[in-house]
Amino acid sequence: MAQQSDHEAAILDAATLETAMRRALELATQGPARGVNPQVGCVILDADGRQIAGGWHRGAGTAHAEVDALSQLAPGAARGATAIVTLEPCNHTGRTGPCAQALIDAGITRVVYAVSDPGVASAGGAERLRTAGVAVQAGLLADEATALIADWLAAARLGRPVVTLKWASSLDGRAAADDGSSQWITGPAARADVHRRRAASDAIIVGTGTALADDPSLTARDANGELLSEQPVPVVIGTRPIPDSAALRRHPHTPLFFDTTDLASVLRELHANGIRHAFIEGGPTLASAFVAAGLVDEYLIYLAPTLLGGSRTALGEIGVGRIDEQHRLTIDRIEQLGDDFLVVARPEKRN
Amino acid sequence: MAQQSDHEAAILDAATLETAMRRALELATQGPARGVNPQVGCVILDADGRQIAGGWHRGAGTAHAEVDALSQLAPGAARGATAIVTLEPCNHTGRTGPCAQALIDAGITRVVYAVSDPGVASAGGAERLRTAGVAVQAGLLADEATALIADWLAAARLGRPVVTLKWASSLDGRAAADDGSSQWITGPAARADVHRRRAASDAIIVGTGTALADDPSLTARDANGELLSEQPVPVVIGTRPIPDSAALRRHPHTPLFFDTTDLASVLRELHANGIRHAFIEGGPTLASAFVAAGLVDEYLIYLAPTLLGGSRTALGEIGVGRIDEQHRLTIDRIEQLGDDFLVVARPEKRN
Repeated sequence: MAQQSDHEAAILDAATLETAMRRALELATQGPARGVNPQVGCVILDADGRQIAGGWHRGAGTAHAEVDALSQLAPGAARGATAIVTLEPCNHTGRTGPCAQALIDAGITRVVYAVSDPGVASAGGAERLRTAGVAVQAGLLADEATALIADWLAAARLGRPVVTLKWASSLDGRAAADDGSSQWITGPAARADVHRRRAASDAIIVGTGTALADDPSLTARDANGELLSEQPVPVVIGTRPIPDSAALRRHPHTPLFFDTTDLASVLRELHANGIRHAFIEGGPTLASAFVAAGLVDEYLIYLAPTLLGGSRTALGEIGVGRIDEQHRLTIDRIEQLGDDFLVVARPEKRN
Repeated sequence: MAQQSDHEAAILDAATLETAMRRALELATQGPARGVNPQVGCVILDADGRQIAGGWHRGAGTAHAEVDALSQLAPGAARGATAIVTLEPCNHTGRTGPCAQALIDAGITRVVYAVSDPGVASAGGAERLRTAGVAVQAGLLADEATALIADWLAAARLGRPVVTLKWASSLDGRAAADDGSSQWITGPAARADVHRRRAASDAIIVGTGTALADDPSLTARDANGELLSEQPVPVVIGTRPIPDSAALRRHPHTPLFFDTTDLASVLRELHANGIRHAFIEGGPTLASAFVAAGLVDEYLIYLAPTLLGGSRTALGEIGVGRIDEQHRLTIDRIEQLGDDFLVVARPEKRN
């Protein structure tokens, strides 16, 4: 009869579950937005729907949200309780044990989660719970929970960071005048937009050519040149050496150097290091290589109301010999930024 | 005392004058929208504000609107009357005598016109009228009258046709793939827009390179390939011979060929032949030459959501070596056309 009583205790009304999931989502945001692991929150409800514990994940190597919540309870206190989790409990023994087993061991009889775990190694938690007789419900506030960890989910699916490629050009597709001068093609509003997006990215990637030619700091700054609170990790790809005096070596984060042309391997390694979203800043050679390799998920094309002509195209060779090899895009939106405008696009889905 | 009585007779209330000017504008549109001369309408009011005659200009070599209206009246019938004209009466003896003198000779005592004549040879009509004791009022419904003959006015000021340069490119500024294939970068909505604008232009200009490579018909067509009712005159600039079999030789208008690189002289000659608005369709060499020469008044840049890379840029060399030599534009608007978008821009006014 214990089984039946546990089961009854776990049936809570929909409003109670949703309130608890909103609380779990709030808790999730207490954790770090960057890193190998996503933000996850967990709330434990007793048989009457009262919250008896709440936890969140504080970053790689620390307890997952479920274990964090359970740790607040006396032994046996979770028996017959309901766990509300923003992400499917993991089934994976990494630096911590599988959360699914921890919930089973604690006597949890119902688990409600928002988003399924897309990870190859970590998925299967729901199945393990069901096999142990735990009632499982998926999908509560899935949209909100997905939005919270969108980049982490996409990167987990792709096995690499989400890649945003940005360039600024004239309306005729040039990034600079023939002598290489490019300051300023776009205006302050467009430049501020770039810096905001840099701050929202985990890594900012340039080729050695740009690192040597422009000596960029690769920081995210405000209009006064002050550093924003969040900074992307600077990443330099290419075979040419970068001098010790380079501005990017004074970045708040230690720069990463990849002496290779294998972009896919660079992205895999960045992902393994917790980079979910990479921001490619150029130059044209590196940008073109990412396009040609099909490794761009989002395009940010800043178009300035000017014509330059000449040889300094923002993109070079991208592997299109015939028109039927073109890289078709879907435009998400066009934003006016001062005198400039920004085209936000992504690769067209092929049927 | 005749002088005073004439003067009193000519003073009509503002509403009567405005009604008569609207009628004159309607009459103007009866005349041809293309050609050396603008659309002009004229209404003659008697001392009581009744319309006693109305006329319009039917094209070069025929009577101007004022003379057309006066011709409907018996000798002496216009004495003491008011002439309402959409354009300042001309002061020029061309294929017809000066209208200002014709109005004086007819005994008109007040002239109300909308827009001043910008022509070097034809201006001065208002002054001649005033010298002869005719009361003159300028600027009534000037905006409407200006809009009606905007291209003619601009061409008269410039001493050449208004020039619209159009190109279609990928977001990275390429007009074709490396092998030259370009069908179809833009979609049906953008192509239909181009054909409508061709039909609204007096001439469509291409270089011999494009004429030879693409064998274009240079006609304005609907979605079914049928000719629109208005067709631009096809113009080919360049030194390479165009074969008798070329599609543009079957155009409803006889093509004009200019075996020169002096674009300004071509435009002057087109203007002398009644071309007010020329539509430059390319290719890249001719387009770049017009940009470099500062001879473009309006840009229509059709941007398709695709990336091509490679060598086939929509613009080539336009004389920009340093960034401070860039051709800055002012964007008037951005229009969505199916999957594509159109940037309408013009050269930035320099201070």
